[in-house]
Amino acid sequence: MSSLAPHPYPLSARLRDVRGSAIRDLLTLTARADVLSLAGGLPAADLLPRDRIADATAHALAAPAAAQYSETAGVATLRDVVAALESSRTGRDIEPADVVVTSGSQQALDLLARATLDPGDPVVVEDPAYVGALQVFQAAGAVLHGVPVDASGMDVDALDALLVGGLRPRLVHTVASFHNPRGVTMSQDRRARLCALADRYGFLVVEDDPYGLLCFDGPPPVPVAAHGDRVARLGSASKVLAPALRVGWLVAPPQVCAGVERLKQSTDLCGSALTQTVAAELLADTAWFDEHLHGLRAAYRSRAAALTAALDDAFGAAITRSTPTGGMFCWVEFRDGRDTSTLLTRAVERGVAFVPGAAFAVGRPLTSALRCSFAGYPEPVLRDAVLRLAAAAT
Amino acid sequence: MSSLAPHPYPLSARLRDVRGSAIRDLLTLTARADVLSLAGGLPAADLLPRDRIADATAHALAAPAAAQYSETAGVATLRDVVAALESSRTGRDIEPADVVVTSGSQQALDLLARATLDPGDPVVVEDPAYVGALQVFQAAGAVLHGVPVDASGMDVDALDALLVGGLRPRLVHTVASFHNPRGVTMSQDRRARLCALADRYGFLVVEDDPYGLLCFDGPPPVPVAAHGDRVARLGSASKVLAPALRVGWLVAPPQVCAGVERLKQSTDLCGSALTQTVAAELLADTAWFDEHLHGLRAAYRSRAAALTAALDDAFGAAITRSTPTGGMFCWVEFRDGRDTSTLLTRAVERGVAFVPGAAFAVGRPLTSALRCSFAGYPEPVLRDAVLRLAAAAT
Repeated sequence: MSSLAPHPYPLSARLRDVRGSAIRDLLTLTARADVLSLAGGLPAADLLPRDRIADATAHALAAPAAAQYSETAGVATLRDVVAALESSRTGRDIEPADVVVTSGSQQALDLLARATLDPGDPVVVEDPAYVGALQVFQAAGAVLHGVPVDASGMDVDALDALLVGGLRPRLVHTVASFHNPRGVTMSQDRRARLCALADRYGFLVVEDDPYGLLCFDGPPPVPVAAHGDRVARLGSASKVLAPALRVGWLVAPPQVCAGVERLKQSTDLCGSALTQTVAAELLADTAWFDEHLHGLRAAYRSRAAALTAALDDAFGAAITRSTPTGGMFCWVEFRDGRDTSTLLTRAVERGVAFVPGAAFAVGRPLTSALRCSFAGYPEPVLRDAVLRLAAAAT
Repeated sequence: MSSLAPHPYPLSARLRDVRGSAIRDLLTLTARADVLSLAGGLPAADLLPRDRIADATAHALAAPAAAQYSETAGVATLRDVVAALESSRTGRDIEPADVVVTSGSQQALDLLARATLDPGDPVVVEDPAYVGALQVFQAAGAVLHGVPVDASGMDVDALDALLVGGLRPRLVHTVASFHNPRGVTMSQDRRARLCALADRYGFLVVEDDPYGLLCFDGPPPVPVAAHGDRVARLGSASKVLAPALRVGWLVAPPQVCAGVERLKQSTDLCGSALTQTVAAELLADTAWFDEHLHGLRAAYRSRAAALTAALDDAFGAAITRSTPTGGMFCWVEFRDGRDTSTLLTRAVERGVAFVPGAAFAVGRPLTSALRCSFAGYPEPVLRDAVLRLAAAAT
C-alpha cells in the first residue's frame, strides 16, 4: 500500500472543466486479451518501421547532440525537412522558421490553444469532434460551439450562419482530411470558403491533419492551408512513422509560432533531440519514406475494404456508414436509433469494442452512432470483429 | 522568404504574463564557437552514455509496444523502477501508481501547476529561483512570493513569517538539493520544518530534485519528502542519463497524480514508449547505473574544484561564492556591487558567458551576482574560462 496519505487536495477549477477521454478510459476497460478492439486510434503495430528506427537511432547517437537538450522549436534538420514536406503539401513557401516541432500534434494543439485563448473565448469545433481537441479547448477555458459534419466535411454554411449571427470565434478547429471520428473529407470548395470566412471574420483555422498522407486513392487532399493564410496546420509523424517518436509539428503565422515556442519553453524546455533526429532521417529519405507510405496506404485500403464489406454483409440496410477514402476510421449509424453505449457493454461481452458516438458529441446526441478503426488488424480479424459485433447487436 | 503573412494575431493574456527565459535567449546569443559558455544548465556532453542508450534502444525495439502509443502515466516498467528508486531515496513506500512519468521534470512542474492552480492563487518560490519554475507559475496565473535562499537553503524562518502574516500559498517550490542557481543545499532541519509548516498551513511542497543524485561527498541528501507527506517530488533522468530521453517524473499524493495524468491526456496523450523503455532498462541495471553515477560524480566534483580554485585565484576577496557539494552550479557575488549584466557584454567579447543573477531574481535585485555551470567542460577549459572572465572584469 502506498504511504502517501490521501490529503484532500483540491484541483484547479480549470481542470474540473476537462472531460476525461472516454476513449482512453475505454482502452483500459477493453485491454483484455480476448477483446478485439476497434476502439483506439492506434496505427497498425505490425506496420511500424521498427528496424529502420533502430538503425536511425544508432546513427543519430554517433553525435553527442542527439542525447543533449535541443532547441525549443525543434532540431534544425527536422524543421528543414518538415518545411520542405509542408511546402510540397500546401504549395506555399514554408520556411523552417515557420515550423515548431512538438511532442505529437496533440502538444501543438495544446500549446496553440494556451497561446491564443483566454478563458471565455469562443472556439468552433466540428460536431462530432476529435475528443483530444475538446479536452484541450476545455482546459483552456474556451466556450465551444459545434458545427455539424456531413459527408463533405464541416458544414461551412452552418458556420457562416453562426458568424452572420454574431459569433466571433478565435479559432475554428477542423480535421478536414479523413475526419476523426466521421471518416469523411472536407470538399475543396468548402476549404476555400472556410479560408474566405477566416479572412472576413479574423479567426484562425486550426487544420489538424494527422491522416492526410494516408490516402487510399490518388494524391493526399490539398490542405486547407493551400487556400488561405489564416491557417495553423498541425502535422504528425505518429500515423506515418511511429507514435513513440512523439514528433508532431505546427506550421503557423510567425506571431503564433513565437507564442507557441515561448510557451513550450516553460512546458517542457524542448522535445527529444534523439527521436527528432530519427524522424528527420526517415522523412528526408524520400525513397524509403515514399515506399513506406505506399505500403501503409495499401494495407489500410485493404483493411478498410474488408471492414466495410463485413459491415454491409452483417448489417445491410440497418446501418448507414461512411466510406473511408483514407485515414483509420469508419463511422456507423444505426437506423433504428439504438443506443450504442448500451450496445458496447454487450459487444465487450462478445469480445469486440468500439467507441460510442456520444463520446465525440458536442451539441448533438449521436447516441446511435459508433466509430470503429480498421487500422489495427489484418482483414480476417476485422471480419471476425464484425461478426462479434453483429452477434452483440442481434 | 516565408509566404505566411504576418497577420496581427493577438496572443492570450496569460502568455503575455510569462517572461521569456533570459537563459535560453542567452544560449542563442552565446552559441558562437569562440565563446566558452558557463551559462547553460546542460550536463556534460562527453559523459552522456550514448552507446548504452543505442544498445537499449535496439533492445527495446524488438517489441512493437516500444514504437506505439503508451499509457498516459508512463510505461509500466519505468513506473516500477522509479517507484523503487524513490522508495529508496525517501524511505517511504512509493508504489508505481504514485508515479506519473513526464517529458522531463519540467513537464511535471507545468502539469502540476496547471492541475492545482487557478489564476490569482499565491505560490511561494525561492529567491533566487529556478527560472523554469517562474515561467510555469506565471503561465498558470499565480501570484509569486519570494523567500530568500542562504547558505543553508530556503530561509524557512522567512517563510514562517509570511505564513504567520496571513499568506496561504497553494504551493511552495524548492530546489532543496544543490540549488539552481544558488548552488546550496537545504539543511535537514529546515526540510523537517518546511514539512511541518506544510501540514500546519495546508500547502503542497514541490520538491524539484533534478540534481540530488549528483552528490560529491557521501550519500545524496535525504529528500524533503522523507519528512512529510504534503510533498510532490519531481525527478529527472536528464542529468543522470541524458536530456534527450525527455524522461522525468512526479511522485505525489493520489489526487494530485490523478489530476496531472488527466491533464497530460490532453497535453500530449502520452510520452515516448521508446525513450521510457530505454530509461527503465538503464535505471534498472543498478550495477551499470551505480558505476555511471560514480563516474559522473567524480567528474563533476573535479570540475567544481577546478572552477572554484580558479575563481579564488582570479578574484580572491573581490567575490563571495558558493562551495558546490553537488549539482552543476556555482553562485558568485561581487563585493563591489558591480553590475553583472554589464559585465556579461564584456565577458562575451572576451569569449566567456555566464548568467547574470538578475535572471533568477524574484524580489531582490541580485544585480552583482552571477551563476556559472562547471558541468560542461574539462578542468583546463574551465580555468581558461575563468581567466577570460577575470580579464573582462578588470
